[in-house]
Amino acid sequence: MKIIVVGATGAVGRTAVAALGERHDVVRVGRSSGDVQCDIEDVSNIRTMYEQVGKVDAVVSAVGHVHFGPIDETGNDEFMIGITSKVMGQVNLVLEGIRYVNDGGSFTVTSGVTNRDPIRGGTCAAAANGALDGFVAGAAVDMPRDIRINAVSPEVLESCRVAYDGYFPGHHHVSDEAVGLAFCKAVEGCLSGQVIIVE
Amino acid sequence: MKIIVVGATGAVGRTAVAALGERHDVVRVGRSSGDVQCDIEDVSNIRTMYEQVGKVDAVVSAVGHVHFGPIDETGNDEFMIGITSKVMGQVNLVLEGIRYVNDGGSFTVTSGVTNRDPIRGGTCAAAANGALDGFVAGAAVDMPRDIRINAVSPEVLESCRVAYDGYFPGHHHVSDEAVGLAFCKAVEGCLSGQVIIVE
Repeated sequence: MKIIVVGATGAVGRTAVAALGERHDVVRVGRSSGDVQCDIEDVSNIRTMYEQVGKVDAVVSAVGHVHFGPIDETGNDEFMIGITSKVMGQVNLVLEGIRYVNDGGSFTVTSGVTNRDPIRGGTCAAAANGALDGFVAGAAVDMPRDIRINAVSPEVLESCRVAYDGYFPGHHHVSDEAVGLAFCKAVEGCLSGQVIIVE
Repeated sequence: MKIIVVGATGAVGRTAVAALGERHDVVRVGRSSGDVQCDIEDVSNIRTMYEQVGKVDAVVSAVGHVHFGPIDETGNDEFMIGITSKVMGQVNLVLEGIRYVNDGGSFTVTSGVTNRDPIRGGTCAAAANGALDGFVAGAAVDMPRDIRINAVSPEVLESCRVAYDGYFPGHHHVSDEAVGLAFCKAVEGCLSGQVIIVE
């Protein structure tokens, strides 16, 4: 398979590249690194990326950031950071990518733990993850040409343990291998419309 | 209790007004009708609405629309309709409303069935509903002064059976009374961070 991994150098995207790269032709996409560059907050940039890469069998997206902070210090502008980046960045990778994905191919987006196991200051993250989980449920029944779509929703990665110390009290840490396996299930498996939880 | 119901004349909002209006002081808010007018897509308009109404014990929101259509005919602009209206309209009613809700008060937003039981052409709706369900999960643990927040997620209303005929094959139709009871549970009950499903 020819597989685009967007966010290939991020903590999550790296696990997909490691897990899928041995058996498949992986095109690594990053904002400023990788085989092809793409700013996922710019729809025309996404279109250019697909024009450069051409037809693929799968698109894996592990990109986007959100605002973290107390809800009573959060306004429309802070909230829209996650909507513009994590939600619409990934949604537009799918909407613009449908014509480039071969029959029976797949999309995989990345959500996260905060809508099922919330943390302080994580309202924007919970909403973004919920939007993505809902998106794949709705999109799966509507995809043309047997294209599948799923979300991988990982707990905090072991590789992020230090960076996130104190923000996710009592949360598990999952291995790169476990997250990579979830992307394998999404890309190489048969599921569609699922939130593949890694915890 | 003094309760704001935003979207008071809509199919869903009407059920909240009917269920809560007998026992409480309900301020009905609509875009062009009701006791107070508010365009929920305009944050400054939301602020003006709260300044007019003043302190309340609960805010119930039953507003917002989304684009329906095949995913391969949906782009960023169509997708953003639901984000701007149903998601950010309701999110901003909460973010701007926190300072106006009394200690121990509550927010209730309205999501819907399409992220747990998807329909054709319902991708934008499923994402919007997922965002709202995730939002209340994240917000609940972060609310100051014992303020609660929940989502009511109703199946298709009996009152919308004719209007939605054919779009929700095999879905149940729920009574106005059942939906109204869900708003009573959210406003008068003790839950927080919950998606109160009516089906």
